[in-house]
Amino acid sequence: MKISISKSHLSDAIQHVSKAISSRTTIPILGGIKFDVAYHGVTLTASDTDISIQSFIPAEQDNKTVVAVEKVGSVVLPAKFFVEIIKKLPTSEIEMEVGSGFQTFIRAGATDIQLVGLDPEEFPVLPSIEENRVLSVPGDLLRHMIRQTVFSISTQETTPILTGVMWSLKEGQLKFVATDRHRLATRTVRLEGTEDLEFNNVVISGKTLNELSKIIPDQNTLVDIVVADNQVLFKVDRVLFYSRILDGLYPDTSKIIPSSHKTRLLLDTKNLSESIDRAYLLSREEKTNIVRMQTLEAGGIEISSSSTELGRVQEEIQLAEFEGEQLRLSFNSKYMLDVLKVIESEQLTIRFTGVMSPIIIEPTDDSNSLYIILPYRTTN
Amino acid sequence: MKISISKSHLSDAIQHVSKAISSRTTIPILGGIKFDVAYHGVTLTASDTDISIQSFIPAEQDNKTVVAVEKVGSVVLPAKFFVEIIKKLPTSEIEMEVGSGFQTFIRAGATDIQLVGLDPEEFPVLPSIEENRVLSVPGDLLRHMIRQTVFSISTQETTPILTGVMWSLKEGQLKFVATDRHRLATRTVRLEGTEDLEFNNVVISGKTLNELSKIIPDQNTLVDIVVADNQVLFKVDRVLFYSRILDGLYPDTSKIIPSSHKTRLLLDTKNLSESIDRAYLLSREEKTNIVRMQTLEAGGIEISSSSTELGRVQEEIQLAEFEGEQLRLSFNSKYMLDVLKVIESEQLTIRFTGVMSPIIIEPTDDSNSLYIILPYRTTN
Repeated sequence: MKISISKSHLSDAIQHVSKAISSRTTIPILGGIKFDVAYHGVTLTASDTDISIQSFIPAEQDNKTVVAVEKVGSVVLPAKFFVEIIKKLPTSEIEMEVGSGFQTFIRAGATDIQLVGLDPEEFPVLPSIEENRVLSVPGDLLRHMIRQTVFSISTQETTPILTGVMWSLKEGQLKFVATDRHRLATRTVRLEGTEDLEFNNVVISGKTLNELSKIIPDQNTLVDIVVADNQVLFKVDRVLFYSRILDGLYPDTSKIIPSSHKTRLLLDTKNLSESIDRAYLLSREEKTNIVRMQTLEAGGIEISSSSTELGRVQEEIQLAEFEGEQLRLSFNSKYMLDVLKVIESEQLTIRFTGVMSPIIIEPTDDSNSLYIILPYRTTN
Repeated sequence: MKISISKSHLSDAIQHVSKAISSRTTIPILGGIKFDVAYHGVTLTASDTDISIQSFIPAEQDNKTVVAVEKVGSVVLPAKFFVEIIKKLPTSEIEMEVGSGFQTFIRAGATDIQLVGLDPEEFPVLPSIEENRVLSVPGDLLRHMIRQTVFSISTQETTPILTGVMWSLKEGQLKFVATDRHRLATRTVRLEGTEDLEFNNVVISGKTLNELSKIIPDQNTLVDIVVADNQVLFKVDRVLFYSRILDGLYPDTSKIIPSSHKTRLLLDTKNLSESIDRAYLLSREEKTNIVRMQTLEAGGIEISSSSTELGRVQEEIQLAEFEGEQLRLSFNSKYMLDVLKVIESEQLTIRFTGVMSPIIIEPTDDSNSLYIILPYRTTN
């Protein structure tokens, strides 16, 4: 292969695919980026076997030459070093030429680079996915849905299925669920025109979803999603993002969500968030993150935490509405702050069914999200 | 003590003194901030015994009350948690009151905090320094001089004296020297009106100088410096910064700097910097940082590095001037980049006396700085 390519286009494509490069791999070919040069453009591919990302650079764009192809061909270049050096080359055009034994020459101005290339035949083959059933979701909505659920996944590799977010689509409702057994986050959205599509138990690794989020551009783009047997394909502009679906059956979480409650509070999100943040700061020093919440007879609630070594923080918050029984319980304030960070509505409701029953938090906007935190069993 | 104090003024003062709080101390009192309340204002002090910082908050500023003092007194509050919570309090005015046993109450809006305070009598006493001989240096100049030398200090605790920058003042010339035995950085500046002052072998820890730099504001401020037997005091606005002078005699570096040379190059700083940066990227993968430089018979120099695993980078740079013998040598590219980062002039000169002799780098502006790097002994 021999090409002359625009540095900025190449850098962007490298940026996209580099998220799939495994930095700690013992298989050298997986630490590389595959170049496939055809006359209509260059395809870059990287894969850590869990996720694979492909980015296409067209030979021409807006009537301008992006890649001048002199000779087609393929090569795998080690991503380490290569990713960094490209950005730092002195010219806006870069020459790349593959010689014998995949030896690759890169030239830019007075800079000459020789790279030890690898055989592209050894590179993993991407899964083939039939694209007959495509689900289109606005990019910013998808990013939001990921952000509002992914923090609740489990980080423990002992329950691999819980390290993912469970997606399901039924009757036009796309639903995300994440839980680590101590907390749960769900977000549902109505997608018009998807009534003929249906899937369930599509569990995608939280780490993968975070990487996917970074690839979705800020401007309004549609992300095309194709769900296959054990793979999902996301198409974002000229980038193809393949992810493995996690093996196993996701637990049925519908029974965890209580339908009734004994106490219901309506209050200001920002007030609650700031109060819990201050109480959290002290509880963090105790390494427990325990914060207490109790309703006050005189109205309002009290948020407090204490540390034998340092002292005590006590906060009072007014309620917009209160209904039901007086209550006093303890919870992990870090979990509560994680929820409050992703709630965008000005007010929220908190419902309790008892001291040891789940705490249910819901924004008052129509975002169709619901959060659950299990309280701590404490003696005081 | 009992006061009502402006949150922003208190936060700023905490910000200043917190740089002297030792986070890993086993002596609780050193993890605290001392409050001394008098009717004219509040003094905050923190100390890790190597450095001590004091910041004064006046009771009044620009005819506005900053601190309303109801009762004078002193207390030491644990910095951990306290430093963070103050910024997050909900009101712009904060009430502080010390009760029995140094129990301290902090009130802001609906937030009530109780802190376990410590006895101020147990706090270390600051050194008393006679201020009869004060050296005034513009803040931005001092920051520059620190930045242009401190990177060359040794990080090895086995030679404690080399972990500092050596200051000397003689005949109106303030000079900074830093070396780790493999490289050396010096910067000299002429300070008018200091001819009656003189000191030598004032070695200040590089870590301390970095902290001092952060305290010097961006706008043009004079820093007053008082050198005593084993302490230096820096006065920046309302902040007093005390530093210990390192024990021991700094090595005589004057003999290391060669007076003659066999080869002299004049070249563009940016070109050299970018070329070496690219060669460094590859040499870093070999964990040696070895980069080769050689003069070319046809003119110019070649910069190169190679990695058995990855390949080779080769750069050619034009020279503005060349005089003397052809030369080829290897050096630590990280050391060279550190120097090139702090050189502000467009061009620089490099002088060599031989393959194993020091490389001397000097900017062509009149900044009076000089850098030395020892080359590597390599076979090729």
